[in-house]
Amino acid sequence: MKEILGKQTMLELYGCKKTLLNNKAFIEDTMLQAAKAAKATIIEHYFHQFSPYGISGTVVIAESHINIHTWPEYDFAAIDIFTCSQQMDDEKACTFLKEAFEAAESISQTYKRGSMAHIKKVRDSQILHHHQ
Amino acid sequence: MKEILGKQTMLELYGCKKTLLNNKAFIEDTMLQAAKAAKATIIEHYFHQFSPYGISGTVVIAESHINIHTWPEYDFAAIDIFTCSQQMDDEKACTFLKEAFEAAESISQTYKRGSMAHIKKVRDSQILHHHQ
Repeated sequence: MKEILGKQTMLELYGCKKTLLNNKAFIEDTMLQAAKAAKATIIEHYFHQFSPYGISGTVVIAESHINIHTWPEYDFAAIDIFTCSQQMDDEKACTFLKEAFEAAESISQTYKRGSMAHIKKVRDSQILHHHQ
Repeated sequence: MKEILGKQTMLELYGCKKTLLNNKAFIEDTMLQAAKAAKATIIEHYFHQFSPYGISGTVVIAESHINIHTWPEYDFAAIDIFTCSQQMDDEKACTFLKEAFEAAESISQTYKRGSMAHIKKVRDSQILHHHQ
C-alpha cells in the first residue's frame, strides 16, 4: 500500500540568466517541456507577466501541478512540482529546468503530502465519535 | 532588508466533508473566498474536475498562488499558499479553508523561498568568476 498521496518538490534556482526570467514565451515553452520531460500529462497552463518584471505560471497536469514564480531582478526562480504519480519523474523536470534557466545553483527539497496512516487515524477517530 | 522573497505554506486538511471535495463550484468559490480573506489580489483561476473524482485548482494572485488538490475518497485536500507579500494574511486563508471543508484536522508547515543571503552569495561568486 502507498504511504503518501503525493509529493511536492520545491526547487530554488539561483543565479539564473536574467533575461530568460522575464521572457514569458520562453518560460511557457520551458515549463511545458519540463512537464513532458517528467512524463506528465498536461491539462491546462496559464502564465502571467508582471509589470515591471517577473512572471508567474502554472501548468495543471493530471498528476497535480508545476508552478513557477520568477524574480529577474534577483536572478531567481521558485518552482514547485506536485505529483501524485509514482511514474512521473520530477527529478528529470528539475534537471531540465536548472539547465534551461542556466542556473548557477539549485536547491531542492521534497515534502510528502497526505499521509495514508494519518488519513486512517482521522477516519477511525471519526467513526469512534460517531458511535459514542 | 527582507531575508526571503516569499513563503509557501503547505496545508493538509484531513477528515474533510467528502461531498465538498468533489464539488467543483463549491471549491472554486471557496478558494476565491480564501484568497479574498487573505487580502490577496486575484488575477486568474482555473479548476479541473477529474474522473471519477478529485479536483485540482489554482488561483493565480498578484502575491503568487493558492493551489488545491482534493482526494474525496480519502477525505483529504492538499493546499499550498505561496505569497511574496508581507501584507497577505495566509494564516487567515488557512483557517477559512479548514472551516469551509469541515476538516477534522489540519497540519500546516511553512517553507521559506528565495534566501536573500544566498542570492547575494551566488551573485558575488559569479562576479568573482567573471573577473578572474
